[in-house]
Formats: sequence, structure tokens, C-alpha cells
Amino acid sequence: MNELITGVIKGERRAIARALTVVENERDGAEMLLAALFPHTGRAQIIGITGAPGTGKSTLVSALAKAYRAQQQTVAIIAVDPTSPFSGGAIMGDRIRMRDLAGDPGVFIRSMATRGNLGGLARASRDAIRVLDAAGFELILVETVGAGQSEVDIARTAQTTLVVEAPGLGDDVQAIKAGILEIADILVVNKADKPGADSTVSSLKAMLELGHPAAREQMVAHHGRILHVQNPAAAVEARFWLPPVLRTVASEGGGIPELMQAIAQHRAHLALDGALQSLEKQQIEIELHDRLRAALIARLLAIIPQEMLADMIARIQARTLDPHAAVQQLLAAQVSQYPDLR
Amino acid sequence: MNELITGVIKGERRAIARALTVVENERDGAEMLLAALFPHTGRAQIIGITGAPGTGKSTLVSALAKAYRAQQQTVAIIAVDPTSPFSGGAIMGDRIRMRDLAGDPGVFIRSMATRGNLGGLARASRDAIRVLDAAGFELILVETVGAGQSEVDIARTAQTTLVVEAPGLGDDVQAIKAGILEIADILVVNKADKPGADSTVSSLKAMLELGHPAAREQMVAHHGRILHVQNPAAAVEARFWLPPVLRTVASEGGGIPELMQAIAQHRAHLALDGALQSLEKQQIEIELHDRLRAALIARLLAIIPQEMLADMIARIQARTLDPHAAVQQLLAAQVSQYPDLR
Repeated sequence: MNELITGVIKGERRAIARALTVVENERDGAEMLLAALFPHTGRAQIIGITGAPGTGKSTLVSALAKAYRAQQQTVAIIAVDPTSPFSGGAIMGDRIRMRDLAGDPGVFIRSMATRGNLGGLARASRDAIRVLDAAGFELILVETVGAGQSEVDIARTAQTTLVVEAPGLGDDVQAIKAGILEIADILVVNKADKPGADSTVSSLKAMLELGHPAAREQMVAHHGRILHVQNPAAAVEARFWLPPVLRTVASEGGGIPELMQAIAQHRAHLALDGALQSLEKQQIEIELHDRLRAALIARLLAIIPQEMLADMIARIQARTLDPHAAVQQLLAAQVSQYPDLR
Repeated sequence: MNELITGVIKGERRAIARALTVVENERDGAEMLLAALFPHTGRAQIIGITGAPGTGKSTLVSALAKAYRAQQQTVAIIAVDPTSPFSGGAIMGDRIRMRDLAGDPGVFIRSMATRGNLGGLARASRDAIRVLDAAGFELILVETVGAGQSEVDIARTAQTTLVVEAPGLGDDVQAIKAGILEIADILVVNKADKPGADSTVSSLKAMLELGHPAAREQMVAHHGRILHVQNPAAAVEARFWLPPVLRTVASEGGGIPELMQAIAQHRAHLALDGALQSLEKQQIEIELHDRLRAALIARLLAIIPQEMLADMIARIQARTLDPHAAVQQLLAAQVSQYPDLR
């Protein structure tokens, strides 16, 4: 285990791969490993990339990785596929990535699939980020297929979240878009050379102006002067971050320098007024709550006799006991076993 | 409160509406109300309807409701919109529904939007189902916009889950479809009069054959004889349920009788070997775990001094404490306060 820890901190690929497997599968020693690596974390820039299938996310992630590599920065990619194992857990875009990035020692790519447990995936990706952070990667790109809760989980672990759209995917997805927009720090319209890109860009801008809290605040702050904030730097100055809408043609590298600039500007924005610190604080609080919840239920279920639980379920099913009362009784059972806990 | 309870059980519309508001907003007395109504639940047939935006789900739900009404059955509709309040929580399709079903005393329609809390929405919809069940509605249709976790939650509360697709929504959504397919008891290709319906039907069938556990089992059981199970009755006989793929043109009522027949067949299938009972048992177990988790964390956070938590977060942020160790310390703090709890 000590060898593994040292290996990760030194950035040895084999140790990193093994450590990722240990934490992903929650093998023995995973917590010890994470605890040992934890003091070495907190240095990486973590970028989340999400969006619906068909938007070309994977190609965009590859293009970003190549561009950061060209600047001599080291890049780790975590590709999270929240679709069920039913589909075989195929990670889209892996072939493209492999072709372009294989063999580069400054890049590390890891695919993760769910095992039917969305909460577990959030934990696993958080732990994987820590391993790669401790291993010294300067940038960690976390890519996920857009499927609701997973985007929210990305927003919880990343410092900057990119939401990727593309023209021609149907214009009836307003409701879904609205939910995703809220977590976006930067909106990317990829495949911007395709027909309909203009209308995708303008509809995203319209939605932002209508609904985004930063847009509303900004409109108030500027007395309606800045209705169209095209320049993210202006938003930084204003101490609001209104997500910019950028165009890319990732397959040809189009728009990538501008995207990198926007990412850097968002990073600079986070450095203002300790925003990055308070974001991290929030993330830690969420993690503690998640972990406490899991630990508490595990402990309670270990104390409650299995027959008691089965009997209660049977009584609920017979409608002679209601679920709320059942929970009260289970909590009381814990108390009666430990009479001082009231 | 007693008046409210009696009103709901008698099926009085005003009492039902008020009770739904009480449970949705977790107002004072919500738990008492639910406990009082609980013995009167368990009679309704609960049907979940999910799918991506643009598939015509709402129109399908309206068409189903009208058809059940024509058979003198009472119908409640819960339209759950898991998109964030950011979008204003507009419930799609409400206008269509209102036009066709308004004024019918045998129909009750309730829209629910999230308040940024997906877990809370699952709870709220479960509670709303109970109120409507106790009020005596024979059918409860729970409609949700497809957004990942929400479909899974539907599958957890419904007895029969319909997944709605439509032609022409883009063919690059395989990954998402695969995840949703798994929870489908019946697949509906709506807008089946549009171009591309045949290919949507055949691609769904191909996915089912490739991946669905029931299909695999069935293929083994029948030595590959039944590759295309077109007739759900055959699946009932075989004691496997392979989701049928049905075509509808909901806007004109096309395919609705066949869909109702498939729903009835699935219901009959659930009645075999106590499958309905064990489904309900599972649902209760999930509910108890959810409720216990919430109660336990609430109790722990009430005990732990706020400063202790804040101090821990600060130490984690400074990397002098790791999150796992923090949780162990918090649990130990609870124990030290109640020394007998070890």
C-alpha cells in the first residue's frame, strides 16, 4: 500500500491505474489510500464537461486535451458514463480519444461506468479526481453523458462546468436545457459549422437572458445596460459571471483557443473574493453529508434485526402500519438498545 | 384535519387538492394526514409514463385518461416536471389536457414541479399518489419528463412503466435509451404516423433483443425460438415479461385500445406468482431506507454543534483532515455524547 501511495504521488502510470481501480471498486484499503493522498490534492484545475449525446462532447474533450498538452500542461480525463450496464457500458468517443492522445505520457484517460448506482458513481468520480489530483495532473477533465442528476453531480465536483450543445438535435428540449443551463459556467455550441448553429446560439442566449440568476442580477446592477454580455471579461469586472456562449468545431479544433480563454477567465473570476474557496467549502459540506448519510444508515441497519425490518415491511404492506410510524419505531428501537440516546 | 381526512376518503375534490398541497409542501400535519390515509391506499393501479421531451407524452396521457374514462374508470394524473424552477416550472401539455378533460368529475389532474431537490420530488410524488389512491381513484397516471434519475424513481413507485419514444428525435440517443429501456414494462412509439416510425420500432426491438434480461432469459428458455415476441400474452405464459413495442398516434387516439390491452396484460402478469406483492415489498423497503437516511442525518446534525462542523470543513479544506476521518470523528462525537452507543 505504501508503495502504491508513493507511486501515485510520483505520478507513475501503473500506480495511478491501480489506485483508480482500488478506489473505484471500493476495495480494501481504498479509504486508507484516499486519506494518504488527500494532503496532496487541491492543486488540479477540475473542468466538468456535460451535454446530451450527439453534441460531440468527447471530440471536444479530446481537442481541449490536445490544446492543453500543446501548452505543456498535463491532462487527465475521466469519462463517466451514467448509462446502465444494460447497454454494456460502452464509453462513447473512446476510439477518437485513443487515436489522438494515445502514447502521450502527459495524458491519462480513465473511463468509468455505473453499476446501477448513481450515488455510487458520484462518489467514485470524486475519488478518482482525488487520485489524479494527487498524481500531479494540472488539468482534470471530467466528461459525462447528460442524463439529469449526473450533470448536477459534475457541477458539484468541478470548478468550471461546460455545457455542450449542438445544432439540429431537436428544438423541443427547452425544459431539459433549462435545467442544465443552471449549472453551466460556459456554454459551448459545438458543430458550429452545421446548419442551425446560429439559432442554437441565439436561443441559448435568450434563455440565459430570461432566466439566469446572474443575468437578472446583472440587469439590475447595470440598469439594463448590459443585456448582451458577449465579453466574459466584462462579467468578471462586474463580479457576476454570466455564462458566455461560445462556438466550436471540435473535430477541426475550431474555437478551442477561445474556449480555453473563457475557461481561464472563469478561473480568474473564481479567484475573486475567495469564490473558489467558498465553492470548495460547499463541495466538502455536500460530501460530508453524503458520507454521514451512508455511514449512519449502514450502522443502523447493522443494529436492527433483519426480522424486525421484514416484519415491519409486511405490516406496512398489510396497511396496519404506515411508513412514517415504522421509521419512528425503528429509530426508537435503536434508542432502546442504547437508552441514553434520545 | 379530521375533516380533511374524511373529505379525501370521500373523494371530495377540494379536500383532495388541499391535502395534496399539504403533503407536497410538507406542511404541519402532513405526516399525520398521510398516516390516516395510509390504511385506505393500495387499491389504485399506478401507471408511470416517461420519455424524452418531444415524444408527445402529455398527449398520450390525455388520450389514455379519456379512454379509461370512457370505460367509467376514475383517473388521476400527476404530471411531474423534474426541470428546475429556473425554467419557471412550466408543465408541458397542460393546456392540451385541460381542453380535453376539464370539467370531468372522474378526472383529477395535479402538476408538481421540483424545488431544486430531486429526492424531495420522489417523496412528494409518492405522497401525492397515496392521497389520490386513498381518494379512490382507480387509475393513477404519473407522467414525468425524461431526465435520468426521475425515470428510475417512477419505476420505483409505479406498477407498470411506459417509456414513450417518437420517430425523428435523433438516432444518437442510444446510450440514454438503453438506460431507460431497462425500466420499461411497455415501450410506446408515439407519433407513429410520422416518417421514421418503422426504424424507431425496429431499433427498439433490436435493443430489447440484444440487451433486455427478460429477452436473454426467454431466448434461453425457448432455445431461441421466440426471437420476436409480438404478443405479450405469450410472455405472460412464459412467466417472463418482455416489454412489447406498441405504436400510437395519441393525438388521434390511434393505438390506444392496444396500449390499454398491453397495460392490462402487464397487470395480469404482475398478479402471477405474487409478483405485484414482491414489487410492492421492494418499494416499501426503498421507502423505509430513504426515510431512515433522512431521519438519521437530521438527528445527527441536530446533535453536532455547528462550530464543530464548520471547523472540520475548514480543516478538510486546509488538507489537514481527510473527509473519511472527519466522518469517523463526527460519528464518534455522537457516541461520546451518548457513551452507550458504540
